[in-house]
Amino acid sequence: MITLKEIARMCGVSPSTVSNILNGKSKMSEETRNKVLEAIEKTGYRPNFFAQGMRRQNNKFICIIAEELLQFSTPPIVEAIMDVCEAKGYRTILINMSMYEKWKKTGVNLGEEKLLMKYTSPALVEAKAMRADGIIYVAAHGHAVDVVPDDYGIPVVFAYGHSRNSNYRCVLIDDFGGSVMVTRHLIYRGHKKIGVICGKEDNMHTIERLKGYRSALSEFGIKYDKDLVLYGDWERESGRICARKLLSMGITTIWCMNDLMAAGAYDEAMAEGLIVGEDISIFGFDNREISEYLFPQLSTCELPLEAIGKTCAEQIIKEIEDENYRSQPAELIKMPCMMVQRKSVI
Amino acid sequence: MITLKEIARMCGVSPSTVSNILNGKSKMSEETRNKVLEAIEKTGYRPNFFAQGMRRQNNKFICIIAEELLQFSTPPIVEAIMDVCEAKGYRTILINMSMYEKWKKTGVNLGEEKLLMKYTSPALVEAKAMRADGIIYVAAHGHAVDVVPDDYGIPVVFAYGHSRNSNYRCVLIDDFGGSVMVTRHLIYRGHKKIGVICGKEDNMHTIERLKGYRSALSEFGIKYDKDLVLYGDWERESGRICARKLLSMGITTIWCMNDLMAAGAYDEAMAEGLIVGEDISIFGFDNREISEYLFPQLSTCELPLEAIGKTCAEQIIKEIEDENYRSQPAELIKMPCMMVQRKSVI
Repeated sequence: MITLKEIARMCGVSPSTVSNILNGKSKMSEETRNKVLEAIEKTGYRPNFFAQGMRRQNNKFICIIAEELLQFSTPPIVEAIMDVCEAKGYRTILINMSMYEKWKKTGVNLGEEKLLMKYTSPALVEAKAMRADGIIYVAAHGHAVDVVPDDYGIPVVFAYGHSRNSNYRCVLIDDFGGSVMVTRHLIYRGHKKIGVICGKEDNMHTIERLKGYRSALSEFGIKYDKDLVLYGDWERESGRICARKLLSMGITTIWCMNDLMAAGAYDEAMAEGLIVGEDISIFGFDNREISEYLFPQLSTCELPLEAIGKTCAEQIIKEIEDENYRSQPAELIKMPCMMVQRKSVI
Repeated sequence: MITLKEIARMCGVSPSTVSNILNGKSKMSEETRNKVLEAIEKTGYRPNFFAQGMRRQNNKFICIIAEELLQFSTPPIVEAIMDVCEAKGYRTILINMSMYEKWKKTGVNLGEEKLLMKYTSPALVEAKAMRADGIIYVAAHGHAVDVVPDDYGIPVVFAYGHSRNSNYRCVLIDDFGGSVMVTRHLIYRGHKKIGVICGKEDNMHTIERLKGYRSALSEFGIKYDKDLVLYGDWERESGRICARKLLSMGITTIWCMNDLMAAGAYDEAMAEGLIVGEDISIFGFDNREISEYLFPQLSTCELPLEAIGKTCAEQIIKEIEDENYRSQPAELIKMPCMMVQRKSVI
């Protein structure tokens, strides 16, 4: 079998140049790159990652395990991870567990960690078999993901979900802070009776955001009224049903804990002949693409998805390259949300 | 180093059971699975994919190379590929080239195949190095992707993009058929002066869809009027600008070659005080999520993204498992679009 050295000799370059080209670095000329890639193709040379992994500690290879690629938050997080890794000379691959699809078929709850393990264990074994230097686990929404054993042996960082294991760093949305920001904003605008359409009651995002809402109310001495807080299921239709109840209570503004339920609140307002942004204020959360296509455009709170991805990549690389850092107890890292003011709030 | 056989002995199961669990097959009991996974974790056993690859022809491992994970069409195609592969016992990984990001930074055109090669060549080498049995290449939009050399040695199937190399099967959208269907529908509804907002002029989707439009007009003996055909750039704002011109020509309906430009046409209609679905009809293409959130909901044409992914996976597995099939000249496979009638057309 042909070796990397022989490829280098054929092309009149150093072995490290060939290796750099294979690792996607881009310092050499276009001409050199093409020559080497042609030689690789012609000879059928296959770099042996395992041999590489045995020769040196650091393979410069990170495996991303995603719970659900179809969830809107996953691609931006993954893309940001890949951007940072590429810039730092790390290769990446993605394993997708398609969990939402599986949950839909089996009716099983995401929270059941035993079942989560069934899918993650083979993925974790696979990542190790490929000699990944580290794993970034991308949860589909904020939930507990204690899926990695204590003695897994390579660094793991969690995006979006959180592990209770202090060996592993987690990068999350600052749900509490985002919610305080939104509630304050609505109060500044003169709203005192703020109806809330939450997500599911036991959901981590719901719990944290509700805390933030209550905290902001008390800052302004506004009494918390539990009747103004309703629970939806994150889907559009539940937003419509909850909005109907809130409108009958005479509220002037509705804060929805995601943009899809805000769209449902728009539907109900429109059915009632109310003009959103004039007769009634509606505020969302997520800043999904749809929020710019509602009429009027939805004011909402942007999730820091890129920042989460970027931070996860930086953290895992730091752990891989710095033994000391790796052995320090992991802290929870929360990334701030951003207000996006459009036209749905008076 | 511990071997698969030893793991099997420890757990009192056959080596093939251990292998099946590692390959994600799900025939065995929960209990057996857990026992084996625990043993694997405890012993630190790492299956050696390269050794596996050398022992047998078929690694049951497919590598997906995506041009751009952030493009709306990519995740559904990838997820469908992964579903079929999993059901047939194939593992998958994804390599993402983040090309749109790179093009944005460098201002380089997607059509430039030399530059495309710069990113795809290392990905192709990597896939081979991982001993993938086959590659599915997922283009970010329909364009020529002659990026795989003739003698690459393992099967490749293209999704969305098309290769002129007859060694490689391509699975595409039936743009022509979709466009005929839309145009006929608008004519049936009584529209004879159908304004069209195309994508970029040299784009494959634009060219095919325009052919379909002309073909359907001529079926009904309606003369093609080039003044009614304007070119946007696929973005919302270009839809607004083109719609302004078309409205001044007295058309009664506008067909936009994507949903984003249709949203721009909505913007213009609203600014002119026209009610979409009453005073003016607007039809889209793609059936992106936003089309359900426009008011009124947009009638549009759904892209067969899942079907493309599913078909690609079936084709690559057939090529991997059937030498005969693999050696037959590749044909172009076109998947039909689907009408989605909502409320934007009179």
